[in-house]
Amino acid sequence: MKPLSLPPRLLMGPGPINCYPRVLQAMSTQLVGQYDPVMTGYMNEVMALYRQVFNTNNKQTLLVDGTSRAGIEAVLVSCIEPGDKVLVPVFGRFGHLLAEIAERAGAEVHTIETAWGEVFAPEQIEAAIREIRPKVLAVVQGDTSTTMLQPLEHLGEICQRYDVLFYSDATASIGGNPFETDKWGLDAVSVGLQKCLGGPSGSAPVTLSEKYVECVRKRHHVEAGIRDAHHQSASGSRIRSNYFDLPMIMDYWGEERLNHHTEAASMLFCARECAVNLLDEGQEAVLSRHKTAGDAMLAGIQAMSLQPFGDLSNKMTNVVGVNIPDEVDGEAIRSTLLNTFNIEIGTSFGPLKGKIWRIGTMGYNAREDAVYHTLQSLETVLRRSGMSLPLGEAVDAAMAVYAGRAE
Amino acid sequence: MKPLSLPPRLLMGPGPINCYPRVLQAMSTQLVGQYDPVMTGYMNEVMALYRQVFNTNNKQTLLVDGTSRAGIEAVLVSCIEPGDKVLVPVFGRFGHLLAEIAERAGAEVHTIETAWGEVFAPEQIEAAIREIRPKVLAVVQGDTSTTMLQPLEHLGEICQRYDVLFYSDATASIGGNPFETDKWGLDAVSVGLQKCLGGPSGSAPVTLSEKYVECVRKRHHVEAGIRDAHHQSASGSRIRSNYFDLPMIMDYWGEERLNHHTEAASMLFCARECAVNLLDEGQEAVLSRHKTAGDAMLAGIQAMSLQPFGDLSNKMTNVVGVNIPDEVDGEAIRSTLLNTFNIEIGTSFGPLKGKIWRIGTMGYNAREDAVYHTLQSLETVLRRSGMSLPLGEAVDAAMAVYAGRAE
Repeated sequence: MKPLSLPPRLLMGPGPINCYPRVLQAMSTQLVGQYDPVMTGYMNEVMALYRQVFNTNNKQTLLVDGTSRAGIEAVLVSCIEPGDKVLVPVFGRFGHLLAEIAERAGAEVHTIETAWGEVFAPEQIEAAIREIRPKVLAVVQGDTSTTMLQPLEHLGEICQRYDVLFYSDATASIGGNPFETDKWGLDAVSVGLQKCLGGPSGSAPVTLSEKYVECVRKRHHVEAGIRDAHHQSASGSRIRSNYFDLPMIMDYWGEERLNHHTEAASMLFCARECAVNLLDEGQEAVLSRHKTAGDAMLAGIQAMSLQPFGDLSNKMTNVVGVNIPDEVDGEAIRSTLLNTFNIEIGTSFGPLKGKIWRIGTMGYNAREDAVYHTLQSLETVLRRSGMSLPLGEAVDAAMAVYAGRAE
Repeated sequence: MKPLSLPPRLLMGPGPINCYPRVLQAMSTQLVGQYDPVMTGYMNEVMALYRQVFNTNNKQTLLVDGTSRAGIEAVLVSCIEPGDKVLVPVFGRFGHLLAEIAERAGAEVHTIETAWGEVFAPEQIEAAIREIRPKVLAVVQGDTSTTMLQPLEHLGEICQRYDVLFYSDATASIGGNPFETDKWGLDAVSVGLQKCLGGPSGSAPVTLSEKYVECVRKRHHVEAGIRDAHHQSASGSRIRSNYFDLPMIMDYWGEERLNHHTEAASMLFCARECAVNLLDEGQEAVLSRHKTAGDAMLAGIQAMSLQPFGDLSNKMTNVVGVNIPDEVDGEAIRSTLLNTFNIEIGTSFGPLKGKIWRIGTMGYNAREDAVYHTLQSLETVLRRSGMSLPLGEAVDAAMAVYAGRAE
């Protein structure tokens, strides 16, 4: 068999993106046993690190072993009992996903929708909460399908007033846009590594407030094979999934160390390194790096005479939607960028399919040279496809942003 | 922050075990995009490789992104509709796990149980099938909690006669004990990497027969955010989990490439390398290596005057249970082995807790030197704890097995 051999792609789509080299290296670390004090020590360290990433004091801050939607499903299926009302404000594909996962968990799901490219005002969400009186508000922070960032800072206070559990999936936004679990009053947050945290898909950090934990602890259940006099089950209705049963996962991560799954150690090392990378550079510095890279990419796109998509005042820092000009074949452009320049930019889903490209500047790739290479190459490919566009202005505009000069 | 730094443990428990170095290296490979032809090419290659690992022609052979129990839950929740009958023969902890996962999926679960340390005769299973008429027979092949290997070769024919879906979890046994998906008539199999395949926990290869696929395709559902004229949903009752919805996962791995999760690329590279490692060395050679290492460990244990646990005629090759002698403190022995000798052996669950140690010889560690170091160190620690035992005979007995001389 041939050894693995991958081309050196520069991944400038909506994620996954290139991993930080140190994150890749961490995954090659040889294992220790799952109950080795060294391993449980690293599990505890990862909890502490992600408390910092999430800006929270939540004790229950841990990894769900799976991709980012594993974290979403764990949070929702653990707290939703059949018939519970869940409100999902939908402003893109991932809102639909939250709604669908909640439905499958047995929830009575209510959605409010806005056009793709817009977000909700707090008043709209409060009005829906007042009418529906849900148990849970589930909202995506950054929806890469539209590049929009839903402001969350006023929603916690509203949820508290109506006694609603406030959950957000911040997979696409965390590390590239401010996120304040405690200050914003969130009860549950789930993320993935494959966007601004600069890792691969496959581990889902979550953080859970005391209120959320109290809610799910009532549904705690101990497996028959390991049940004994000290480990009996609570009386609440059983969570529909074993794998995503957060009370059991908390017992595995907690002092009890009650066996559930076998922790995916390599992905834990990887998640640790993603957090260490963020905290070593400093959250403010990383946010600023994402802001500058995103501003530079946007300035370049506009200088090239391309039109960005959506309400720019609510755009995520780390991805921009670009309306595909009528005169070009969007997929042909993407294909040439990939095959000739080794640069990947993204396509779209649902109502935006074929209408916009999505260009990301995330994690390791929220970097000056990556922005310039992408703009130059896109310009070249568009020019050679016959499109008329100003030459050299894109990279100049991006360089001006980096030079601190607003154009 | 300090860099990751782990002690050089020799992991001789029931898994996880030390990974093959090439498997660890593969995880450090830089990513490409999830729809990059290079990535989808590797996904197709992984499907082909695991068909060989599973000894099957099943088209639907793919990875579930999560630990081995993620694969179990995906198989069960995708085929079980609420009220369906599932039969689980329980001969250890993991039988209880299958039963519990099936229950949470809404099944009417029937179990038959045997003492820990024994397995079932095909007639016992057939009698239960005749009485219960389940939709699914779910049985673990190797249950590390007892070290027993349930023979499966006669069960496929029985299941076919009664029109029962035949599912087995072979996480603990695959790669170290024969497994024949097609020859034995299995409809679904799930495994993990962290035992004889020599990888870390975190990816769950599964293979699905046409009969199984036909059953779950009726429940196919397309997410709202990506539904369009070409991708509509089937009419069957919706699968209770989005993450574990195998029809959707098949669409992601199939020509459709319909987005579901973002494939955990690093774990895919890892799973690929586990399979390549097995197939490069050759399945027969790897099985034989596990058989010899297991026999040598058993011979050493017996020569040391320790008593192995359970019915040895149905023992897995890759793990042996050892009755903890009355005169020693089992946990103190394990602790000294770990802290002084950097060797990990396993403890036990449930009814065997505190009664047996479990010593594994799996994957990379199904190796002559690993067997000798473990026996020598165990002998030293037992001797120094005050136990009287024959000295040097354990390693001699193991060496005799390797020399091809039966003692």
